[in-house]
Amino acid sequence: MAEPLRIALAGLGTVGAGVIRLLDENAALVGARAGRPLQIVAVSARDRAKDRGVDLSRYDWCDDMTAMAARDDVDIVVELVGGSDGPALTLARNTIAQGKGLVTANKAMIAHHGLALAEAAESAGVALKFEAAVAGGIPVVKGLREGAAANAIESVQGILNGTCNFILSTMEDSGADFADVLAQAQAHGYAEADPTFDIEGIDAAHKLAILSAIAFGARLDFAQVHAEGIARVRAADIARAKDLGFVIRLVGSADVEPAPGGGQRLLQRVRPCLVPDGHPLAHVDGPTNAVVAQGNFSGRLLFQGAGAGDGPTASAVVADLIDIARGEAGPAFSVPVGDLAPLEPADAGERTGRNYIRFTVADRPGVLAEITAAMRDAGVSIESLIQQGRQKEGGEVLVAMVVHEGPARTVTEALRLLEGSESLTAPPLVMPILAA
Amino acid sequence: MAEPLRIALAGLGTVGAGVIRLLDENAALVGARAGRPLQIVAVSARDRAKDRGVDLSRYDWCDDMTAMAARDDVDIVVELVGGSDGPALTLARNTIAQGKGLVTANKAMIAHHGLALAEAAESAGVALKFEAAVAGGIPVVKGLREGAAANAIESVQGILNGTCNFILSTMEDSGADFADVLAQAQAHGYAEADPTFDIEGIDAAHKLAILSAIAFGARLDFAQVHAEGIARVRAADIARAKDLGFVIRLVGSADVEPAPGGGQRLLQRVRPCLVPDGHPLAHVDGPTNAVVAQGNFSGRLLFQGAGAGDGPTASAVVADLIDIARGEAGPAFSVPVGDLAPLEPADAGERTGRNYIRFTVADRPGVLAEITAAMRDAGVSIESLIQQGRQKEGGEVLVAMVVHEGPARTVTEALRLLEGSESLTAPPLVMPILAA
Repeated sequence: MAEPLRIALAGLGTVGAGVIRLLDENAALVGARAGRPLQIVAVSARDRAKDRGVDLSRYDWCDDMTAMAARDDVDIVVELVGGSDGPALTLARNTIAQGKGLVTANKAMIAHHGLALAEAAESAGVALKFEAAVAGGIPVVKGLREGAAANAIESVQGILNGTCNFILSTMEDSGADFADVLAQAQAHGYAEADPTFDIEGIDAAHKLAILSAIAFGARLDFAQVHAEGIARVRAADIARAKDLGFVIRLVGSADVEPAPGGGQRLLQRVRPCLVPDGHPLAHVDGPTNAVVAQGNFSGRLLFQGAGAGDGPTASAVVADLIDIARGEAGPAFSVPVGDLAPLEPADAGERTGRNYIRFTVADRPGVLAEITAAMRDAGVSIESLIQQGRQKEGGEVLVAMVVHEGPARTVTEALRLLEGSESLTAPPLVMPILAA
Repeated sequence: MAEPLRIALAGLGTVGAGVIRLLDENAALVGARAGRPLQIVAVSARDRAKDRGVDLSRYDWCDDMTAMAARDDVDIVVELVGGSDGPALTLARNTIAQGKGLVTANKAMIAHHGLALAEAAESAGVALKFEAAVAGGIPVVKGLREGAAANAIESVQGILNGTCNFILSTMEDSGADFADVLAQAQAHGYAEADPTFDIEGIDAAHKLAILSAIAFGARLDFAQVHAEGIARVRAADIARAKDLGFVIRLVGSADVEPAPGGGQRLLQRVRPCLVPDGHPLAHVDGPTNAVVAQGNFSGRLLFQGAGAGDGPTASAVVADLIDIARGEAGPAFSVPVGDLAPLEPADAGERTGRNYIRFTVADRPGVLAEITAAMRDAGVSIESLIQQGRQKEGGEVLVAMVVHEGPARTVTEALRLLEGSESLTAPPLVMPILAA
């Protein structure tokens, strides 16, 4: 058998330990498929003493992880430290500068510095791979970069954050409200102590920006991704959506449209959405992730699986290592960075679609008249409306409506007309209804 | 840009014409992703005069397709002729013998001759690729061969034949019986004039055998695949299954178990199955295909999309061409043919599971007593049973039951006890119930 691929592993959290377990348990088949053994030679993490349930005595311990790339006995570096900057980024830069390949699960780093790293990797002729950065164990980076490579991709939609999907589907099953389910998810370790990145949609936005670059050949620009989180979704919204035949999911969606001056414009958004029963994302429950891509020849492709966890993420990391061992070192974003197009953002206001709008209102006469008048004046046509009375003393009164397909700017205008109204006791929540 | 990859295209049916259209419409992005232009130089088919809606005048026409591989101006051959032997196989052998790569959509040829062709390709150091042979536009060969490469795959389940899935889901929606829906599918071109390969499960078995080889590192052995078709499934079975919370789908499933003497045994079966609502295959309707793979680290992965059609199949063919243009020429079945294990078939009789059994019976006293006695004597425990009276004069009486989890051999034994019974007016139909 050929020479081993010698690996430095930085970061020994659950995923790092998972990679070690995988390379132990599946050593024979991984070696057979890679055409050579994959061998960890050095590891690094913050705390050397911590018991991670794996035998680290076989590996050299490096106190300075950023220096691992310079070791003569290392061919490739696996970065599982996390964080968009700091030691992870230093290590990534050092690795490529040393002419060595990098495998990372770091979505934040790729979303913010992926283009610069990919450009450096191209110049150095080394691989930069990040399958594990998007949708855990699902080979969707490969699916878009290679599997769907013959297609002009028209749109990508994904459930990209397992924590949010767990919270929303648990709210659905239990009828509990957001805060309670979040607390429960934190107690079970499904959500971080500081869940901001997850519940505000930032994590999903990182992943969507990465997928967009690959799918549309667009220069990755994280600042263009509009992200709304799930903290304002209530049990009552989920119940109402269910009555109407929808589930609520945090969906990242990106698509291209022709630009006025030629070329394309790109719209990238992460928002809680109402998903109809016939849509492939309607049956994605718990911490599962899924990505739907519409290709101009392939039609609709769905990739689904575990979005996080040590095993699935390790599976993606090692798949990248096997690819590299096999000699695959093509452009990280499918085409060279210089060929990625700097796509302008599309105008979301011109997009048409159906929407769900929920108002939290004061329980007094004239409220409905005021809301419906604003809708009329803005040119928003109401398809159905339900006013739900107080469920308990001092509770809120909710008005939920579905509005007919129309430009998003008309909904924005209707809400603007209602701004400052004393009829509303909280800002309204608008959620788009996905087409089947 | 680098030199073009020069292609000879054999077979100009809908898929062949689709490949030409795709390479025309997506030329720029395909070239960018491949790193070089993909250029068809020569084509061949049976009938030169036929209008295929694409301009063939740009290409050299070859009357003898088997000689295309020898042309000096051809780097790679795309075989879309079909048929396990004959000209397709001759062309494939010639191509590899000429030291050129082969891309094919020919499931029958790969199922029967894939090992020999892969071995020849390895010796010649050329690529043999067949993404389009399995599940149309879904990149599932790549998904298993590369995306899930870090995993020991424990099982693969798939809806692999779009014609059968279309027929079953149309029966479900319309309540019509098999023969009527088949006739309708033939009239619409969704089913062949001779639908035997599809409805008898042979086509799905070809695909399953190919996936098994990749997933389990098993020597492909088509003769080991047990295939049952859908022709005996009735509208009444679908209605009964629906009442019980299931849909009926033709599912190819393969899994491994430890062999008594060490190593593994492999079970590969294509059968109509009852799929519970929580299973990812339960929502696969119409001509859609889907494959679920269970990896020991990745967990359950789902790949879903269009299982046939010119666009999706062309997408898969060209994805293979892009891979080859990028320099990917690894073993066709993930590991070299010499490393594939000759797995013995597992004993299906020892497998446990729940089953649905439907009897077509005479309308006279004692029938139920006879059937239930046979069940008891064979050790089969009945979970639920419904006898449905004649729906119309001279119609049949059906007895449908679900039996508790138990070894398959006990069900076989119960049916053996009832063989030749005058109570039964047709052979019983047994369908396994998939676990969620």
